[in-house]
Amino acid sequence: MKLTIKQPILMEHLNYVIRGISNKNLIPILNCIKFELTNDGLYLMSTDNEISIKTFIDKKDIENIDICGTIVVSGRYIYEIIKKLPNEAINIEEVVDSKLSITTTNSSFQLNCNDASEFPSLELEDNKTPIIIQKKLFKTIINQTIFATSNQESRPILTGINFHIEGDYLQCIATDSYRLAKKTIKIHNPMTDIIDIVIPTKNISELIKLFNDDDDSIEIHIFSNKVIFKFNDIIMMSRLINGTYPDTSKLIPETFEIDLQVNLSDFYDAIDRASLLTNEADKNTIKLESHGNDITISSNIPEIGNVVEKIMVENKNNQDIKIAFSSKYMMDALKSFGSTDVDLLFNGEIKPIILKSSSSDDLIQLILPIRTY
Amino acid sequence: MKLTIKQPILMEHLNYVIRGISNKNLIPILNCIKFELTNDGLYLMSTDNEISIKTFIDKKDIENIDICGTIVVSGRYIYEIIKKLPNEAINIEEVVDSKLSITTTNSSFQLNCNDASEFPSLELEDNKTPIIIQKKLFKTIINQTIFATSNQESRPILTGINFHIEGDYLQCIATDSYRLAKKTIKIHNPMTDIIDIVIPTKNISELIKLFNDDDDSIEIHIFSNKVIFKFNDIIMMSRLINGTYPDTSKLIPETFEIDLQVNLSDFYDAIDRASLLTNEADKNTIKLESHGNDITISSNIPEIGNVVEKIMVENKNNQDIKIAFSSKYMMDALKSFGSTDVDLLFNGEIKPIILKSSSSDDLIQLILPIRTY
Repeated sequence: MKLTIKQPILMEHLNYVIRGISNKNLIPILNCIKFELTNDGLYLMSTDNEISIKTFIDKKDIENIDICGTIVVSGRYIYEIIKKLPNEAINIEEVVDSKLSITTTNSSFQLNCNDASEFPSLELEDNKTPIIIQKKLFKTIINQTIFATSNQESRPILTGINFHIEGDYLQCIATDSYRLAKKTIKIHNPMTDIIDIVIPTKNISELIKLFNDDDDSIEIHIFSNKVIFKFNDIIMMSRLINGTYPDTSKLIPETFEIDLQVNLSDFYDAIDRASLLTNEADKNTIKLESHGNDITISSNIPEIGNVVEKIMVENKNNQDIKIAFSSKYMMDALKSFGSTDVDLLFNGEIKPIILKSSSSDDLIQLILPIRTY
Repeated sequence: MKLTIKQPILMEHLNYVIRGISNKNLIPILNCIKFELTNDGLYLMSTDNEISIKTFIDKKDIENIDICGTIVVSGRYIYEIIKKLPNEAINIEEVVDSKLSITTTNSSFQLNCNDASEFPSLELEDNKTPIIIQKKLFKTIINQTIFATSNQESRPILTGINFHIEGDYLQCIATDSYRLAKKTIKIHNPMTDIIDIVIPTKNISELIKLFNDDDDSIEIHIFSNKVIFKFNDIIMMSRLINGTYPDTSKLIPETFEIDLQVNLSDFYDAIDRASLLTNEADKNTIKLESHGNDITISSNIPEIGNVVEKIMVENKNNQDIKIAFSSKYMMDALKSFGSTDVDLLFNGEIKPIILKSSSSDDLIQLILPIRTY
């Protein structure tokens, strides 16, 4: 393998593949990046068995392709070296004894290579009918749900986001069994089969970090045991979580006795301040009490002090509520809305609290109350 | 105590005094802030016995002073509460049962107070002849030396910066016994006595965080067991480290056999890249070798690879050197210079390496070599 490539171009693509490497992997080959140079361009690949990332630099972006070939080299070292090299052309060449030489005008590095044949083969083939979504929209729906996933390995199925596709509707659901986030969007290309998969939270969070700000779309190719995302010149594969995602469709009531429409930022700020006098050991519990259009939010830590916040709401059904919940969960849920107003919906102090934008039903947040009264 | 004050003004001053509180203090009163309201204005005070901070808000910046008085309240809680209150007037009032009430239009906090009489009395009186230095210059001399202090508690005297004042010269010295930083400046008001004190690194680092960007000066009042800094409306006191600072005046040679003038940024970048193939267990050792006006910098980790960097220098005495040193120490030292060129001065491979700006002698960095050849 021998090529000449400009530093910023190689760096951009190393920034992608480095995310496929978990630093602490005990299997040395999984800490490596594979360089595959063909006459079409340079492929970079990384995998930690959880996710795999492959990126492509077209020959038009490469100064010189001298000798095609494949090498496998420590990901962390090549990443740091290229990062610190100046913005100029870099010569990369496999030399005798499986060594990779990286040279610029003043710098000359030699890195020991690993055996290329030991690098796992990544099966990154396409599906016939991918789902196509604008990257920006995809990032939004992930950010609106991902925080509600569980980090408890005792129920692995809840440590991912459920993607449920029927016809031209995609539903993203996340729950840790104390709260639930559900976002529904319409997709442009209807699916003939029902799709129901769970993608690990960690992997999907790495995926959206790879997104740039352009308006391009992402292709999602779904298989029985993996999902492949394609966008720009990047392919990322994630494993799926095995198992059946719990049926959450009956958790969200159709009707509500109490409906308080609040200004999102006023309500958020009041919860945020009240949360100062809560503690984690006590589930960050705060109380909400409505009296017509006035609500009070209160909390206390006996040895420190107490707080009462007042805000005005629109009490649509003119029914009052006294309820307690986690301020942390409420703030997480509120942050997912982009609207000015949010409807807080209740059916009593021991029934789930539902949050919806006042203008749309596509995003629903559910929080279980805490019994204190 | 009862007053009304605008949120941004109180917050600015809480930002200062909060730095006098170490969160983990086992003595509850040392986690508190003391509010002392007089007809002249409001004093805020904090102390953790290592440092004490006192700040003053003039009556002209306070909306209403209703009842003078003193309260002592949890620093962390009052800080977080005021921080999250909106930009409006805040009513602060001591109410029955040693409670502090903090109210705005919509928020109402009550915090339990501590016994004001238990708060340590801070002796922050002035000295007759303070040293006066521009804050910006003071910050520069600290940043040029502080990194060379030791963090080993085995020799406490080296965990501070030595301030040595004779006549109108102030010398700041820091050393961890493997390297030394020494900065000399002229002060405007000569001292009649020789002053030689050691200020703890941690405290001086907190001090410069309190600086804003204005061109004002700082007054330094030195006592036998403490030092008091006065600037803007802030007074900070630090304890001194007991003991005699080692005499380092003979460590820096007068003459040098080898003098290599390097471009600071080129040399720094080369060291930075070479340091990628070093490791901490091996003291981040890199080698430098000169051949006339060419120098090579090299390092290696046998299982990973090696690197050779070349740069051009001006070999002033036309004498060559082969020497090894810590890349980390060299980078720390180089970062302290603001000049374009730096002179690397040597008297052989086992003698200290000296760094000076090519244009001035006021800053000297010394690094001990590592014996490898």
